[in-house]
Amino acid sequence: MTTDEQAIRTLIEAWLKASEDGDTAKVLELMSSDVVFLQPGQKPMRGRKEFEAAQGGIRDVEIDGRADIQEIHVNGEWAYCWNFLTVTFTPKNGAAGRRAGNVLTVLRKESGRWAIFRDANLLTKVDG
Amino acid sequence: MTTDEQAIRTLIEAWLKASEDGDTAKVLELMSSDVVFLQPGQKPMRGRKEFEAAQGGIRDVEIDGRADIQEIHVNGEWAYCWNFLTVTFTPKNGAAGRRAGNVLTVLRKESGRWAIFRDANLLTKVDG
Repeated sequence: MTTDEQAIRTLIEAWLKASEDGDTAKVLELMSSDVVFLQPGQKPMRGRKEFEAAQGGIRDVEIDGRADIQEIHVNGEWAYCWNFLTVTFTPKNGAAGRRAGNVLTVLRKESGRWAIFRDANLLTKVDG
Repeated sequence: MTTDEQAIRTLIEAWLKASEDGDTAKVLELMSSDVVFLQPGQKPMRGRKEFEAAQGGIRDVEIDGRADIQEIHVNGEWAYCWNFLTVTFTPKNGAAGRRAGNVLTVLRKESGRWAIFRDANLLTKVDG
């Protein structure tokens, strides 16, 4: 495994950890300021500010995310990652829900650090 | 616009035209033999053979696809494209349906020709 590939794996683990901790400031550090998140049936979420605004809705939800990385390919300052993600959401006053599916992410190395740049999230609701 | 960006736009137009014409052989030429297609709630579709097998189900469907390319970024022999796609399906004996949404695609230059390599398709059913 190359140093870059390891750095991208570490970034993904840090993302999941920060999400579990509700540490939005840390999550924001892991994405480019020009990031775009794509989800089915939704408008693109552009930039850290839109991401941060969307976090308000899940403040009282416990998140447990598991990454099963399928592929990482690095080409200079750019990379892509194909990941299979399983996320369990447990609201404070409600039943847990689970979403799972593939994620295709384009990453860019910015000032020597990898950052999420484009992200297509294909997770759907699953049972169990 | 660079030559590579133009070549990728031409590839996407050729893909839509071949799909409209039901020309699966041509569509297969535009993807890598190692291609992976990702869709919400479905297993990854790997390689030309799986793509070709899936075409059987839409043989009697007229397809009209429109691309609204949001972004193309080329980095040497690799590129990604963010596209907003609208596809109208008209079965021979049924009502037309429409799907629209974002697509995030990783492309690779193979023997001097761009090919679809990884594709995350976020299209959902829409009205109208």
